[in-house]
Formats: sequence, C-alpha cells, structure tokens
Amino acid sequence: MSDRIGLFTGSFDPITLGHLDLIERASGLFDRLYVGIFYNPNKAGLLDVETRKQILADIFAGNNKISILVSTNELVVDVARKVGVNHLVRGLRNAQDLEYEASFDFYNRELAPQIDTIYLLAKPEFKFVSSSQVRELIHFQQDIEKYVPQAVIKELATRENI
Amino acid sequence: MSDRIGLFTGSFDPITLGHLDLIERASGLFDRLYVGIFYNPNKAGLLDVETRKQILADIFAGNNKISILVSTNELVVDVARKVGVNHLVRGLRNAQDLEYEASFDFYNRELAPQIDTIYLLAKPEFKFVSSSQVRELIHFQQDIEKYVPQAVIKELATRENI
Amino acid sequence: MSDRIGLFTGSFDPITLGHLDLIERASGLFDRLYVGIFYNPNKAGLLDVETRKQILADIFAGNNKISILVSTNELVVDVARKVGVNHLVRGLRNAQDLEYEASFDFYNRELAPQIDTIYLLAKPEFKFVSSSQVRELIHFQQDIEKYVPQAVIKELATRENI
Amino acid sequence: MSDRIGLFTGSFDPITLGHLDLIERASGLFDRLYVGIFYNPNKAGLLDVETRKQILADIFAGNNKISILVSTNELVVDVARKVGVNHLVRGLRNAQDLEYEASFDFYNRELAPQIDTIYLLAKPEFKFVSSSQVRELIHFQQDIEKYVPQAVIKELATRENI
Amino acid sequence: MSDRIGLFTGSFDPITLGHLDLIERASGLFDRLYVGIFYNPNKAGLLDVETRKQILADIFAGNNKISILVSTNELVVDVARKVGVNHLVRGLRNAQDLEYEASFDFYNRELAPQIDTIYLLAKPEFKFVSSSQVRELIHFQQDIEKYVPQAVIKELATRENI
Amino acid sequence: MSDRIGLFTGSFDPITLGHLDLIERASGLFDRLYVGIFYNPNKAGLLDVETRKQILADIFAGNNKISILVSTNELVVDVARKVGVNHLVRGLRNAQDLEYEASFDFYNRELAPQIDTIYLLAKPEFKFVSSSQVRELIHFQQDIEKYVPQAVIKELATRENI
Repeated sequence: MSDRIGLFTGSFDPITLGHLDLIERASGLFDRLYVGIFYNPNKAGLLDVETRKQILADIFAGNNKISILVSTNELVVDVARKVGVNHLVRGLRNAQDLEYEASFDFYNRELAPQIDTIYLLAKPEFKFVSSSQVRELIHFQQDIEKYVPQAVIKELATRENI
Repeated sequence: MSDRIGLFTGSFDPITLGHLDLIERASGLFDRLYVGIFYNPNKAGLLDVETRKQILADIFAGNNKISILVSTNELVVDVARKVGVNHLVRGLRNAQDLEYEASFDFYNRELAPQIDTIYLLAKPEFKFVSSSQVRELIHFQQDIEKYVPQAVIKELATRENI
Repeated sequence: MSDRIGLFTGSFDPITLGHLDLIERASGLFDRLYVGIFYNPNKAGLLDVETRKQILADIFAGNNKISILVSTNELVVDVARKVGVNHLVRGLRNAQDLEYEASFDFYNRELAPQIDTIYLLAKPEFKFVSSSQVRELIHFQQDIEKYVPQAVIKELATRENI
Repeated sequence: MSDRIGLFTGSFDPITLGHLDLIERASGLFDRLYVGIFYNPNKAGLLDVETRKQILADIFAGNNKISILVSTNELVVDVARKVGVNHLVRGLRNAQDLEYEASFDFYNRELAPQIDTIYLLAKPEFKFVSSSQVRELIHFQQDIEKYVPQAVIKELATRENI
Repeated sequence: MSDRIGLFTGSFDPITLGHLDLIERASGLFDRLYVGIFYNPNKAGLLDVETRKQILADIFAGNNKISILVSTNELVVDVARKVGVNHLVRGLRNAQDLEYEASFDFYNRELAPQIDTIYLLAKPEFKFVSSSQVRELIHFQQDIEKYVPQAVIKELATRENI
Repeated sequence: MSDRIGLFTGSFDPITLGHLDLIERASGLFDRLYVGIFYNPNKAGLLDVETRKQILADIFAGNNKISILVSTNELVVDVARKVGVNHLVRGLRNAQDLEYEASFDFYNRELAPQIDTIYLLAKPEFKFVSSSQVRELIHFQQDIEKYVPQAVIKELATRENI
C-alpha cells in the first residue's frame, strides 16, 4: 500500500492547544503528516514566520512522522501536490466553519481530484480556542497559559512590550 | 505502526451512491475498513438485513480491505472495540448533521477515548441522496437509478409490488 | 408568451394568515395560481378535507386567478405537471426550512426539470405562525384570531368541543 | 394585467455561470427583467464597469426581455422604483445568505412596500460559484472556464498580466 | 421593588447536571425560582412524576428560594401567571434550540406580555448532556455518573431491571 | 440578599429602539443596570462619544436604576468587575449572534467565573434593527424615525450635512 501522507495547514500565529490536539490526533492516521504554515507576508502578525516554524519544530521534535513546511501565496492543493500529499486534514468547530469548508472542499476537489479532505471535530474544551482569540487576550494582557503550548509562552516571555 | 482500522456505520436500507462514495474514499485511509449495518429489528424496512448484507458483500467483493458486519441494539463504540477499530468514519452533509455529529462525537469520546472519529463531506452531487429519500421515491414509483448501486436495482427488480 | 402558472401547496389544516399573505403576494406573479391541499387521509387532522377546501374557496372567491385543488398521496411535481404548472411557490421562514427546501428543490428538478421553484420569505409578523402552532393554541383553548382568517374562526365556532 | 417587471442585482465582477443560470430562470417569470450592475467606484475590481456592462449586453443580446442597467451609490429599491420594477429577484445559496437576505427583505419592504422579493435557490453545481471565488482562482492562475461564460474568458484573454 | 419570581421548566426525566447548573445560576437572579416539572401522563418515562418531584425536592432542600411544582397539560404561561412569575428561564445549547425558543418566546409574549423570558447558555461541558441522552445511556447500560446528580443514581440503584 | 447589578454594553452609535427595548426589559431584573458605551477611538463613527453619552443620559433620566458609563480599550469583564457587576446582559437576534456569543460567554467565564451572562431575544419587530443599518439608512438619506429614539432624531437634526 502506498504511503498515507497528510497536510494540516494554518497560520499558527500562534499555534494553540486546539491545533496541537488536532495534529496529534491526525498523525495516527498517516505515515507522514505535514504541518504547513501558510504565511501572508503583507499581514502584520504576532510572531514572524521563522519563530512560528521554530516553535512547531520544537513541539513536534519527538514525533518523526511530522514535518513542518512554510508556504507564501500558494494554493493549499498546489503545495499538497508538490510534497505528495493525498489527504488534507481540517478541524471543524461549528456550522459557520462548515459553510466555509464545504466551499474549500469543493474547489480543492475541482483542482486536485486525487486529494481528499478529512475533518476532525474540535474537542469541546478547544471549541472556542483560536489564534485570533489568543492574540486578543495578549492585547488585553490576559493569561494565555490554558490555550497555547509552553513553547509559545516561553517565546513571548523573551519579549518586552506585548 | 499498528494497523489502522476504521468503521463506517449505517442502516443501508438501501445503500446509496452517496454511501458508496464515502466508503471508497475512506477505504484509502485504512488497512481494514468495516462497514457496519446497524439494524433495528423493530422497525419495518425496505430490505431485510440479510439482503442488505448480501448487497454490500457483492458491491465490495473486489476490495479485500472492506469487511461487512451486522449489529443489533449495540452502541457503535462497543462494536468498534470488539473488532479493534481505532477510527469511526462519518459523512457530513449539512449544519444539522453537524449538530447531531458533535453530540455523537462527544459521547463516543467519553465512552471510548482511544477511538477517534473522522468526517468526510458528501460531494455536492450526493448531498441530498439518502436512504430515506430513496425509499420515498420508491413509494411514489419513481426511478432511483441515479441514487443507488446496480445491485440495489437488481434486488428490487426481483420483487413484485413495490 | 405562454401562461405563467404557479402552485402553492400545504395541508392548510387550518390555513393561516401567513399562508394567506404568501398566496396573495404570489398571485401577482402568475396568470393562474393553484392552491393545492395536500391531504394525508391516514393522519387525523383538525378539519376534514372538504371543510379545508370550502374555506379556501370562500377566502379566494374574489380572486379569479386562484384555483383550489386537492391531492392525496401524490408527488407535488406529478400534480404540477397534470395541471400545467411551470413554477412551484414556497414560503421560507428560517434556516431549517432552507435545509428541507434545498432537498425538495433538488428532487423536484431531477423529476421535472421544466418546473422551477420560487421562494418568498415570510414577513416577520408571520414568521412563527403555522398550522401546527394554531392547532396547539386551540388545544389549550387560546384565542387564534390573530393567526387565521375569519373563515376559519367561523367554521370552528360551529363546533362544540374543541 | 399590468406588466411584471423584475430586477436582479449584483456586482458581476465577473458574471458567473451561477448568475447566468439565475437570470435565465428568472426571465421566464417577467415581461421585463433588469439586470442591475451595482458598482462601487471606490473599490478596485477585476473589470471596470463599462466592461462588465458590455459583457452582460453581449451575453443577453438574444433575449429581448432582459435590459442591463448600471447604478452607483443608490439603494436597490430606489433604482427599482425609477424603472417600475415590482419584484426583486435574489439567489440563495446557504443559511448565511438567508440571514442576510431576511434583513435586506425587511428593509426593502419598509422602504418600498409595493415591491416584493422572490428567491431562487442556486443549483447544487453552482452553490459554491461566486465572483469572489473566481477572482481568487484568477489570482492563483487557475482555470476558470467551468465557472464563467465564454465572454468573460475572452475579455480576460485580451489582457496581459492577470 | 416587587419580587422577582422566575420559572424554569422541564420534564426532568431525569434531571441532569446541566439542568442543575442552569437552576443554580438562575436562582441568583430571583427572590423565588420555581422549578416546574411539566409532565405528559400519556408518555411512558423513566421515572414517574412523584419520583422526579422527590428527587428535585431533595436536591434543592438547602436552597429556600427554590420551589418545585408539577403541571400536566397546561401552557407554561398559564402556570406562570397562577404563581405570579414575571420571568421564564430557559437554557440554550445550539442554533436549533434558538429556532425553537424564538417561536416559544413569540407565543409567550403574545399570550402573556407581562412575562419576559431570559436565556442562559449551557456551559461547554454540559452542551451535550440531556435527559434523552441519559436515558439512552441507561438503555445501553452505560455509566451515567458524570451527567446526573447523585440523587438520580441512588434512585436508579434501588431498581432491578433498567 | 446582595444587590443584583447588571451591565449591558454596546457602541450605541446610535442607540436604536431595539437597544432601548432590551435595556428596559433587563432593568426589571436588576437593582442597578449599567449601560456601557464601549468606544473605539480609532474608528470614525456617526456620533462622538460625548454625544452618545448625553443621548443615553437623557433617555434614561427617569429611570434611577440605570447608570451610563464609558469605556475605551478595556475588556467587558474588567469593567464589570470594577463596578461590581454580577450579570452581563446581551441581546440575541439569530444563529450567527449565538455562535459569537457562545465564544464571548466562554472567555468571560474563564476570565471572571463569578460573573454570569443572561440573554434576551430581540422582539421580532427589532430583529433587523441595528446601529449599522441605521447608519446605512442615514447614508442613503432615508427616514430612521421607526428605528431610533426621538433623542437621536433631534441630535441629527441639528447637523447640516449627513
């Protein structure tokens, strides 16, 4: 049987415990799981892309099935094809996600019929955890320990004014 | 790596082309995929359970990764545990499905944390195809060729008054 | 130009002011608008089908574009074809209606591609008005004057124990 | 009977096959159907408004019931009143559309009670087709032939760097 | 200021930890909070109504603001009026609940404009906990300790064949 | 019993009759109800914050349970804590509101577990009334008398070019 190769994408600015849970759950299904940082260089973020990549590399250092990649201004299916992915992996949190995902699923199938997409439901404790909410908590100087991996906490602690 | 073993359940009364598409798409992810006919003996159906099983066996005869099983009045996760399943596979068609599936996902995780669930979105052409709609079309003596495998058509043709 | 002929269906047990508003709004679009009482003889109702028909005939007596018809155990599109309808007319109240209607629209187009369906949104004041709610108000002996035409009130007043 | 005059509005940047299907289906209901290009001059688009108008005029040249109009910074109902429209025509794709449309319907009825709105459901094959998705496909240099009329393809082919 | 008197209704067959949380949260807002067991004598349940009442009385024995009442075949607002309630209290779990509640809210306001309704969102850990799910777990002989108060566990332990 | 103190927040640019209805309905539940103008100084609005505050003060001058406060760049729960609030009050209009509110409810409970949130459903006549719709009607020089209190009309009448 040919290898099962997955791709889970996000901006990971920063990675949350919700992402971490989805990636770990997904990794059991694949021989190789790419975690793709899709990066928009025109959008000011919290973390620069090199820092995001380093954090993901540190977190998944012990899981040799997981590889990190970075992409800028490319279609997800184009990246998937380049590295031999046969399944995209997506998290679903609510009905609004589903509406968006159904459109994404449609166009991905049109553009790359050989690549399929699987969905995992976010666990209830992660349902409301997102990178944008974490950034908002940081803006209001609230504690984010319950929502992000320790590697994110450590990185942010090295900074002065956040 | 331990085997990846999936379970896709339904009443399959009758199996539709939508089910068939989901099962074929899912089978690529697993070393073994069980297709479980969950049967309610108190509910009069279109096809008896032996016929449903025979139809599924015929359809998937060429795919040696797929096994058919039948269950009556058992929890899905209990059946899954008995045959060593590590992933349930479910189809999603719309936001109402998602509400139902989120509850199903929650209880399955509570009852069997080691079993995870993955979802596939129905393709647009199968979004409205369901066993209950097919039974309604049969009730109104409409053609169902576009919605079910040939094995179902043949089985129904052997009958007189449907 | 060929005639524009519409069909608006329901059980009308009883007709509500919400139905009345939709029918009057729809009638402006058509040369003839059929109002179809789709009747399930196995389901005990509030009004028998002859009474429903008489009430509708009385209400629309002044509008010579509107015709009443009765159907039992037929597909809507089969009835539509028999009387030369080219457009079905449906009311929409909420997202759950839409999910149901999308399936109905799909199968009607499959079965009768030459017949199209148009939707009208219920006005906010009628959004929660339905025959089943009216029957429940009657069960609890509440006033229903704000929700049904006078013809329904008069019919019910002739009865003793409701 | 007075004329039935409809209005279907959009930015049409570019027109898609989904728009085309809705306009053709709607035109059967009306004596005249206006297709209104609602144009925001402060928003950089793919096509300038003259090009959009020319493309629509070419596409509907053979249908003498259809007229093209252009509007900038006006309310839809104000435009509708000026040209004698009695029905707005809108497409519906999903529950999020419905939420938006219900508000639009409410205000239009408040502002112009004599004008009603009818909805058509997008066919499943066009459910995910939108001008913004087409622009995104163009941005990623993907083929858009399946989603837009030939007149759009030809216009874009005359350009150099898109 | 006149007393604030609330009413929280349900079938409580059995009461869940989700109900308990809502009732305790609501009780802080009121001088008196009625917990109303709305009982359908024609529907076979898990617990008879006297047992449900005894369980609720035991659970809330220490909170002298809470009173238990039982109602059969009455409108909620009629019961509310009889005991001087000015606010109904309802739990909300998801968008389908909201659709139902909006209709309930509308009719309650029509029938009793002086009574208002307030909603509390179920906490995420109780989002999927319902009496019907608990009954299904009991049917499949699963542990329900995480979903119901101890008083329910004790009551069920006194029985033989459940 | 300790005081029941509520907080209803918004940008109130301008206050609508929908806000007014919710505030009046909520005020019956509390000993003190704060109406909090949450103000983003970086966002150009219709009314400056002093004007919004004056309008609210005028409208609620006769209700001595209501106090107005202004906040800039603070978390709602931080403001709530400072003034001793135990309940936030929120309006709900539709399923999209609910998705947003569920996230807001989650984080508020995480940040301030002692503060709970109650929801009121907007009455049907106010379901589509919002500050942003009112600003759009003003942009198109439409009458807004049905949607805002007289105090807003008077304030806007003192201006020249709106």
